Amino acid sequence: MASNLLKSKYQVNVFDLNVDAVHELCKQGATSVSCPAELAGSADTVITMLPSSRHVKEVYCGNEGLLASRRRGVLYIDCSTIESNYASELSAVCYSSGHEFIDAPVSGGTGGAQNATLTFMVGGEERALERARPLLSAMGKNIIHCGKSGNGQAAKICNNLILGISMSAVSEAFNLGRQMGIDPHVLASVVNSSSGRCWSSETYNPCPGVMEGVPSSRGYTGGFASDLMLKDLLLALQAAADTKMPLPIGSAVAQVYTVMHNKGYGEKDFSSIFEFLSKNKS
Amino acid sequence: MASNLLKSKYQVNVFDLNVDAVHELCKQGATSVSCPAELAGSADTVITMLPSSRHVKEVYCGNEGLLASRRRGVLYIDCSTIESNYASELSAVCYSSGHEFIDAPVSGGTGGAQNATLTFMVGGEERALERARPLLSAMGKNIIHCGKSGNGQAAKICNNLILGISMSAVSEAFNLGRQMGIDPHVLASVVNSSSGRCWSSETYNPCPGVMEGVPSSRGYTGGFASDLMLKDLLLALQAAADTKMPLPIGSAVAQVYTVMHNKGYGEKDFSSIFEFLSKNKS
Amino acid sequence: MASNLLKSKYQVNVFDLNVDAVHELCKQGATSVSCPAELAGSADTVITMLPSSRHVKEVYCGNEGLLASRRRGVLYIDCSTIESNYASELSAVCYSSGHEFIDAPVSGGTGGAQNATLTFMVGGEERALERARPLLSAMGKNIIHCGKSGNGQAAKICNNLILGISMSAVSEAFNLGRQMGIDPHVLASVVNSSSGRCWSSETYNPCPGVMEGVPSSRGYTGGFASDLMLKDLLLALQAAADTKMPLPIGSAVAQVYTVMHNKGYGEKDFSSIFEFLSKNKS
Amino acid sequence: MASNLLKSKYQVNVFDLNVDAVHELCKQGATSVSCPAELAGSADTVITMLPSSRHVKEVYCGNEGLLASRRRGVLYIDCSTIESNYASELSAVCYSSGHEFIDAPVSGGTGGAQNATLTFMVGGEERALERARPLLSAMGKNIIHCGKSGNGQAAKICNNLILGISMSAVSEAFNLGRQMGIDPHVLASVVNSSSGRCWSSETYNPCPGVMEGVPSSRGYTGGFASDLMLKDLLLALQAAADTKMPLPIGSAVAQVYTVMHNKGYGEKDFSSIFEFLSKNKS
Repeated sequence: MASNLLKSKYQVNVFDLNVDAVHELCKQGATSVSCPAELAGSADTVITMLPSSRHVKEVYCGNEGLLASRRRGVLYIDCSTIESNYASELSAVCYSSGHEFIDAPVSGGTGGAQNATLTFMVGGEERALERARPLLSAMGKNIIHCGKSGNGQAAKICNNLILGISMSAVSEAFNLGRQMGIDPHVLASVVNSSSGRCWSSETYNPCPGVMEGVPSSRGYTGGFASDLMLKDLLLALQAAADTKMPLPIGSAVAQVYTVMHNKGYGEKDFSSIFEFLSKNKS
Repeated sequence: MASNLLKSKYQVNVFDLNVDAVHELCKQGATSVSCPAELAGSADTVITMLPSSRHVKEVYCGNEGLLASRRRGVLYIDCSTIESNYASELSAVCYSSGHEFIDAPVSGGTGGAQNATLTFMVGGEERALERARPLLSAMGKNIIHCGKSGNGQAAKICNNLILGISMSAVSEAFNLGRQMGIDPHVLASVVNSSSGRCWSSETYNPCPGVMEGVPSSRGYTGGFASDLMLKDLLLALQAAADTKMPLPIGSAVAQVYTVMHNKGYGEKDFSSIFEFLSKNKS
Repeated sequence: MASNLLKSKYQVNVFDLNVDAVHELCKQGATSVSCPAELAGSADTVITMLPSSRHVKEVYCGNEGLLASRRRGVLYIDCSTIESNYASELSAVCYSSGHEFIDAPVSGGTGGAQNATLTFMVGGEERALERARPLLSAMGKNIIHCGKSGNGQAAKICNNLILGISMSAVSEAFNLGRQMGIDPHVLASVVNSSSGRCWSSETYNPCPGVMEGVPSSRGYTGGFASDLMLKDLLLALQAAADTKMPLPIGSAVAQVYTVMHNKGYGEKDFSSIFEFLSKNKS
Repeated sequence: MASNLLKSKYQVNVFDLNVDAVHELCKQGATSVSCPAELAGSADTVITMLPSSRHVKEVYCGNEGLLASRRRGVLYIDCSTIESNYASELSAVCYSSGHEFIDAPVSGGTGGAQNATLTFMVGGEERALERARPLLSAMGKNIIHCGKSGNGQAAKICNNLILGISMSAVSEAFNLGRQMGIDPHVLASVVNSSSGRCWSSETYNPCPGVMEGVPSSRGYTGGFASDLMLKDLLLALQAAADTKMPLPIGSAVAQVYTVMHNKGYGEKDFSSIFEFLSKNKS
């Protein structure tokens, strides 16, 4: 994503705990800074992308964090996938400190990030989104305004809830079909021309051999890790629990990914649920 | 389906316990017969479509059943959705009695039946399928040969397993999104341009108001009843249990549809799982 | 069970596919016969104990089966655990052939069988039960009349449904407790003096080291195999599906045991679900 | 609990938002105070019992909270059921402010509270527990030291995880048994003398008519509300998610109680899951 900003001739200052990543970007024209506060002291816009709300909180509100800078008027764009209600809270903190903020989690995977074809799901004020748009356009293809602050996160976890469940569905069905003696290519042609078709069956089939260039064709490497799918499902379940909304199916899928984490599937692509459920491989 | 055969100028003899249905077809040019055996005594091809394997067994193997006729060389096409292994068994019985047989369950709903756009998933011998093809073409659009006898049934339940699960997924996600304050039209645009897209989200959205002309826009009437989805899920679970194949997600969905059956949702369209899971309506 | 009949001075004729088992009993005083029909030709009472209804059907109704004998007035006692409705059906067949029949599945495990402390759950007519009582008393301690034919089976699977679920409950709780840093002996003392106490926590604790002389203390060997628990849960689920009774929790447990079957736990004691769910062992 | 302290001649100061409850205790000899801080300014020991960690945080750490008092050396006993790791955190805060702290959640229900037969599950230092013991003994019967700070909470949610699951188990089994035609009294006698026996089947049977004096015999009123069981199950699931420990069965039960909340069962006793799952009542 930073590379694509550089390609679009933006001046980019970077901070990351991963020194190699910083070094690589500096070779491409970025400048390294020593702490988040330093970023906020000089940049018009700061883009953050972090593993969880705990890290987001530290980077924004810590002692050397972004909001420790006295400069005002920064546009903050948080591309992390975190709790929707924490995104809202952080937005309020930013506005009360004289800044603007949008939550803008992404979908599209590492491929989308490299090819600048990401989808951004944006929550926040129209004005802030318009200010962010040129930058987002340099990194992605679709920018969808999902409403008020936090709604970008909400849209992201709702989408990934469907994704995790439908990947499970395709994995169960193709395992069952194989067990019943039906060729997986034939089953794919039935499903994809019928009411079972979905993103997982059409573009990311979890059954090895059905499609080329997808994780299932290369030992479930690359792609979107099972542990990350689990993280997103747990965010959905937490949001649901907060309002006592039932998610009987999403919670069953989260449990399968939890067992998978403990059986060595955590870092494999999330379509490896096919292999976990199969009869042929432990 | 019978109407479409009549439109294609086939001579059609009909038998059904529903006298009104028979009467209606006779007005369109069909001839009524008094029992299944009578059909088998005169027709080249017999098409059956029945609620469950119990009925199929009775119609084929009962005292006045199809196979009670002494005529040989009939092509039997069973369009019921039943256990795959019973379809194989019945095929063997038909062949050993000097007939041909294919299992040819359909997808496409009542709309597909009326408009001759059904998909037929066919299990059985190539030769029998070729003999059946002109008739199937008069009633449907896609004819997919899924392999050996029973495989039509296998393909059907694998597809419907995905369908039932992904409908649940979309229902959970759109309920959660609504609860989190995201407009369902916006969520639909996010999901349908992202990895959550599936037949249920794109063409049959269960959230009232998102799409027109679908059951969710008319109180979940019409369409494919929850009880029928439950029937298909139970067929999948039975097939899975026979070979100890796990279906953790499919079984969770089947349990939700079982509760729905007992809470008055059995005859509503299967997308009413959205309403059942919602916080607004009991 | 046969040994205990011999100890009570009954004359015992035996038939089994396992020649070693037959040989061992003959050493204890039993007489071997060549087929089930031969048993029915000479004995007053025939006791059957078989893996599934398929085997029961063959042994009773096959060509050389029990009912092939022309002798009348036999009391049949079926101790197998099978479908309740098949037990009723078989009872009707036996009575219409001039015999008496009870279904009398057991609980108490191999230990109960050896020590003549089994519990018999009996379905059928009072008169037949009274005729059977001396024999049952020679093999077990509790004889509970559960009502009409098939009810012995019904009681058995209802009990084992609770057993399978509560074993899962104890396994989840003791794993979670361990993860949270609580000593399993302390947790056992809390649970067993509180509302969590159950047969599994008190007499068969699945957490290694909490109790001696139970399968968890010897690598989950001995005891009641996971695959047998799965069989009983599937019987419960089948009976429930027949009347559209929801079993959301029982079905989730059955799915865990199905995954366990495929991951090498099938022959281990059913309390090995503790190990399967734990974080320490794959 | 406060009444029992008064009966044991302790001097009791009380604070509660419920004015009637305070008034009633004052009639029994207690003295009312105006805020938590005032309690901490005069008492040797402060016992708190609050709905959730949010309330606990406010009462301890709020502006007029307990820790706002400058007095040192207070023994705090928190009897709330809350997150184990928040209890540990709060303990550290109390100790660093010169106080002592134990977490001491209870089991035994309103009956146990009235009759001073509660069980206290205590987490914290031995010394603090010994200081608390006379007070706890005035309110309960069993005092179990579960280890370090937070372990009282851990033991409580592990126990209630088993309780929620086994109540579901008994409810499924007794519904299934009734459907299969077995008398619930007979089933109870089978289960309670066999491996299905548990606290729920023996002392709190959820099937109306089996036992007297339990919530199921009075329309599921009194007892322990479904929403409270849901709260405890969610605490268990949160603790499990924190360490990626699977709880496939506990999570399925939590989902059922979530649906029940939305269908009007939230305030009924938690054994009403029997009614929710039954075929006879919606």
